[in-house]
Amino acid sequence: MKKSYWLWYPGDFELYHAMKQNFSRVERGMGWPAFWKSEGFRNRVVFRRTYQLQEETAFIVHSEATGYVLAGEKKYPFGRKILCGSGEIPISIHAACIEKFPTIYIEGDVICSDQEWLAEDYDQPPVPVGYSRYFMKADQIPSVWNYDEKRYKPVRVEETDSGVLYEFETELTAQIEVVRAVHTERADDTEKIRIFCGESREEAMDQEHCYYSWEIDPVTNRSPRCAVRFVFLPKYKKEEMKVSAIHQYVDIPIKASFSCDDELLNQIWAVAEHTFQLCSGIFFIDGIKRDKWIWGGDAYQSLFVNQYLMADPDINRRTLLALRGNDPMTTHINTIVDYSLYWILSIKEHYEAYADEEFVRQVYPKMVSLIKFCEEQLDEHGFLIGRKKDWIYIDWADLDKEGPVCAEQMLLAACYKAMDAMESVAGNRECAACTEYNDKYVELVRKIDQFYWDEEQSAYIDSFSSGRRHVTRHANIFAILYGIADTERQKQIVDCVLFNDRIPAITTPYFKFYELDVLCRMGRLAEVLEQMKSYWGGMLKRGAVTFWEEYDPNVSEAEQYDMYGDKFGKSLCHAWAASPIYLLARYFAGVRILKPGGEQYEVKPQMEFFQKIDCTVPVGRWKRVHIYGDTEHLDIEELQEQQCVEV
Amino acid sequence: MKKSYWLWYPGDFELYHAMKQNFSRVERGMGWPAFWKSEGFRNRVVFRRTYQLQEETAFIVHSEATGYVLAGEKKYPFGRKILCGSGEIPISIHAACIEKFPTIYIEGDVICSDQEWLAEDYDQPPVPVGYSRYFMKADQIPSVWNYDEKRYKPVRVEETDSGVLYEFETELTAQIEVVRAVHTERADDTEKIRIFCGESREEAMDQEHCYYSWEIDPVTNRSPRCAVRFVFLPKYKKEEMKVSAIHQYVDIPIKASFSCDDELLNQIWAVAEHTFQLCSGIFFIDGIKRDKWIWGGDAYQSLFVNQYLMADPDINRRTLLALRGNDPMTTHINTIVDYSLYWILSIKEHYEAYADEEFVRQVYPKMVSLIKFCEEQLDEHGFLIGRKKDWIYIDWADLDKEGPVCAEQMLLAACYKAMDAMESVAGNRECAACTEYNDKYVELVRKIDQFYWDEEQSAYIDSFSSGRRHVTRHANIFAILYGIADTERQKQIVDCVLFNDRIPAITTPYFKFYELDVLCRMGRLAEVLEQMKSYWGGMLKRGAVTFWEEYDPNVSEAEQYDMYGDKFGKSLCHAWAASPIYLLARYFAGVRILKPGGEQYEVKPQMEFFQKIDCTVPVGRWKRVHIYGDTEHLDIEELQEQQCVEV
Repeated sequence: MKKSYWLWYPGDFELYHAMKQNFSRVERGMGWPAFWKSEGFRNRVVFRRTYQLQEETAFIVHSEATGYVLAGEKKYPFGRKILCGSGEIPISIHAACIEKFPTIYIEGDVICSDQEWLAEDYDQPPVPVGYSRYFMKADQIPSVWNYDEKRYKPVRVEETDSGVLYEFETELTAQIEVVRAVHTERADDTEKIRIFCGESREEAMDQEHCYYSWEIDPVTNRSPRCAVRFVFLPKYKKEEMKVSAIHQYVDIPIKASFSCDDELLNQIWAVAEHTFQLCSGIFFIDGIKRDKWIWGGDAYQSLFVNQYLMADPDINRRTLLALRGNDPMTTHINTIVDYSLYWILSIKEHYEAYADEEFVRQVYPKMVSLIKFCEEQLDEHGFLIGRKKDWIYIDWADLDKEGPVCAEQMLLAACYKAMDAMESVAGNRECAACTEYNDKYVELVRKIDQFYWDEEQSAYIDSFSSGRRHVTRHANIFAILYGIADTERQKQIVDCVLFNDRIPAITTPYFKFYELDVLCRMGRLAEVLEQMKSYWGGMLKRGAVTFWEEYDPNVSEAEQYDMYGDKFGKSLCHAWAASPIYLLARYFAGVRILKPGGEQYEVKPQMEFFQKIDCTVPVGRWKRVHIYGDTEHLDIEELQEQQCVEV
Repeated sequence: MKKSYWLWYPGDFELYHAMKQNFSRVERGMGWPAFWKSEGFRNRVVFRRTYQLQEETAFIVHSEATGYVLAGEKKYPFGRKILCGSGEIPISIHAACIEKFPTIYIEGDVICSDQEWLAEDYDQPPVPVGYSRYFMKADQIPSVWNYDEKRYKPVRVEETDSGVLYEFETELTAQIEVVRAVHTERADDTEKIRIFCGESREEAMDQEHCYYSWEIDPVTNRSPRCAVRFVFLPKYKKEEMKVSAIHQYVDIPIKASFSCDDELLNQIWAVAEHTFQLCSGIFFIDGIKRDKWIWGGDAYQSLFVNQYLMADPDINRRTLLALRGNDPMTTHINTIVDYSLYWILSIKEHYEAYADEEFVRQVYPKMVSLIKFCEEQLDEHGFLIGRKKDWIYIDWADLDKEGPVCAEQMLLAACYKAMDAMESVAGNRECAACTEYNDKYVELVRKIDQFYWDEEQSAYIDSFSSGRRHVTRHANIFAILYGIADTERQKQIVDCVLFNDRIPAITTPYFKFYELDVLCRMGRLAEVLEQMKSYWGGMLKRGAVTFWEEYDPNVSEAEQYDMYGDKFGKSLCHAWAASPIYLLARYFAGVRILKPGGEQYEVKPQMEFFQKIDCTVPVGRWKRVHIYGDTEHLDIEELQEQQCVEV
């Protein structure tokens, strides 16, 4: 039998599961669905394909939807064997479903649901179907993700005056199973069992303020799936209950490893790896306890880590399709203007990492509509400004946001550059001289120079409208990151902004990602290594098993979990804190892709920082390089994956 | 307690239930969902309102959605009592739901879910909430319509060689209940019971070709709801089973009655009334067995019958919201260009019948976007043409459809006229001299005259592009119906087209509706009465208990249920066949609204056709006129409804 997939209208799978993800946040018994436009899977689709049959063949269409199969001129119901004689036969499969996206699966030797089918939604012209290698069995239901599971026993059980505290070896995304031990007196209690979960011991013990407290389902003996390292079970004794955690995860294999003579760095890598794995499920999410949402800015950074850790293009695709939604675009991604722009930059990063032309062709029309949507918001100079209710975010920092904001224009310029590149990849450049996006890039950079560059301060200012000529690191970091400043200015920025103590420091790990990236690009590896060891090492000293949303060494341990005015508001497992993976692999192991997909790449390990090194770094989807040796002798070998295992 | 409704984003209720309706068609075990764009209820909304509280008050928010209540600065879960002190308090209710539209219900003395709330979808500016008088109880679920039920026993039971045939007194939309009689031997059979339903005796007896055959649910003892008059139960004997029909309907009271000395007319009215009631559920549908779909052209005609039978504006609103969907408009209603145009005309008819300004204000933006969408398809003369995949329908008839079709332009002209009128009603006319739509109307009519009027034939031709100068009745009927032809031409059309046997006759009751309307307008009541009695009377002679989708007296009884090449393809209960209600009430009882909502109206009974008359006709929503008497003496009295019972 040929390979069959569950098929759907492309994007529907992602929009549906994205809603499940973005509506799954819970805070102390209350649902907290994401506050942006959420909708858009289709309810009525048709799948079409014409076969030229050499001989008679049979097939069965499976679907939970309402509908029928039209083979030639004859209609058939789902679930029954259909026989077709030889010759040309057009087949269309009509499917309607209200509560979820319509899907079909075809079992057959010749006629089967492979990627060659087209889908229509009675609105747009036919497009290639959507599918996923995770859904290739007839008995699956594409609206339900089949997580892999691993059972964890507590590593420590502590009886307190009021109950029992269970600690697991690390943080998990797990259902908690609580089973009454048969031999105790209260074994037949029908009273519902309530547990209190925590990312920290303190949170689990605080029944009032902990985020997740659940009643155990008496049928499955399990709680809902949530972020958890500690579980508190009040009122019971140790021997009365058996507690375990059923960790549920998407199995995306790790392709990288890092080991050097500095144990702290090895530990930082390991904890960053675990952090990132937890935040990489069906989609890249920000954190596993909170927000559990798919954010465009966070996802953009996750792309970089993914490239150097799992090199999995599928999660990129799912995340990018989920973020963008359908045309027409009427609101910014996550309501944030910069997050819309990161989406375009993400496509370019994705392409460079995996040479995924198919995906670029699929989403290029949405790139065009996104950039057009942004261009409806340009002022007389061509600068991007927010509309009412648009969020110009950039960072949690004291930026001067009066009028058009410099950092936003830097991103727009980078987008023009990305559009220019992707236009060719998508095969949409009409002629060699069609340089619309490049022309826009050149013009915008000229205007940025004219309005934002401050010769006296040797820096880009946030805003020219306010007259305050305020300088922050943000726009200046972007100026280097996206090559908007020339070499001379880049050096000036390093001296006058990045190493200038009067310019307020970056406080979020989110923007720290960009700052450290830029410092690496500017050759300041020693300083970056120092910062990495003190910042991420600082969290380790505080007992972190995953990296946090934010860390301030000056905050006391008593208040270290506090954020947004909430005692346990801080997420202790946050994707953007996994940047050491990217920094170590790219700049210290020195692995960099030169041609899309890694067709050409360079390996320049920075051995001045290591006595010994043994690491493996993916290059594109199919290759890995193994770098091992010491200051005396270094070996670099390329490992080729088996492409044929891929489905 | 104040009146509370279930609230939703306006239109969501209709889009959701419309999908249920349009996906409910079943044909011999196969689902046959409607073949047009179907989607669009929202998954994430927020409801907002600010109260000025005189004193402390409490409220509870009910919702099946995921979300929370924000009262002032504090968050609360659904389902719990929330106490608010006096003063100003902004309340927002956040709700997300994937499988159906999010809804809320607020129980409270002061804070309650009335019509004053605003809804937002994170896309468009806030709009007044959607609600329905059918959903005012906290324990209801707005995604489930609570049908009224009435149990019918069979009026005839007939044992055949192979089973038992049950006949009900008339056609119903019913679940069939089959209960084993306790005293028989096979009472404990676990075998599933299968029934065969039919609109006709012949259909129910034909196990291969009947549309609906069901297994009886062993838990409820019922079949799914379907169109049924006859039920055949194979393999059993009369005494083994008790069969009844649970008719499920939306209770929309009949406000009209018709009685005259001509029994045939009285019977035609009664059967038309029953036909129309069956086809008026949550929405106006075409037929109850087939298609069970909401069609814009059929709905437009139903509006006219409704006005004279039930005078229920709510079903108009629901149907019109369901048909139009969300902006942006990208496909024609039901894929048919003329059906898009009828939608605009429907709004005007609805307004004239009920003076429903609130609804006009709500949908006016969608009228504008619809007409703009059509205007993207104009040719160089300003004539509307179909795009690829658009359906230029007009009627099942031999129209010359090459190039722009005349009847389509007539509808467009009528739409410009309607837009002009509704612009004022919606309060969207910027100045008295702003006559955009009227100007377009005048110009289009001028072009129609120039290109389509054929002086020689005294008729409008179908197409000028083909050069065939082919005349059908359709455009000429519209020319009178919408006042596009002047009085002189109207007379010419009657003589040279409508009473010209060489012009092919109208064959569908659908277009017959317009033709008879026009003949009445032109004073040809005697001919209309004759046609009514022969055509509808003809169906009665064939034993019709509801009026059919189509009737041709020349077709033998053996083939009378055949249509679309399908032995039982004809729908025997079709809304468009209920036009005698409209014709009798409007032109024979002579009741006509002169000012919107019936503020002014005329009553001109045509007593030359009756010896005696006693009828009641609604005028707008709140009034009815009672006309009774004979050729000697006639009384007309106005009956005023109790407005305060309305909720």
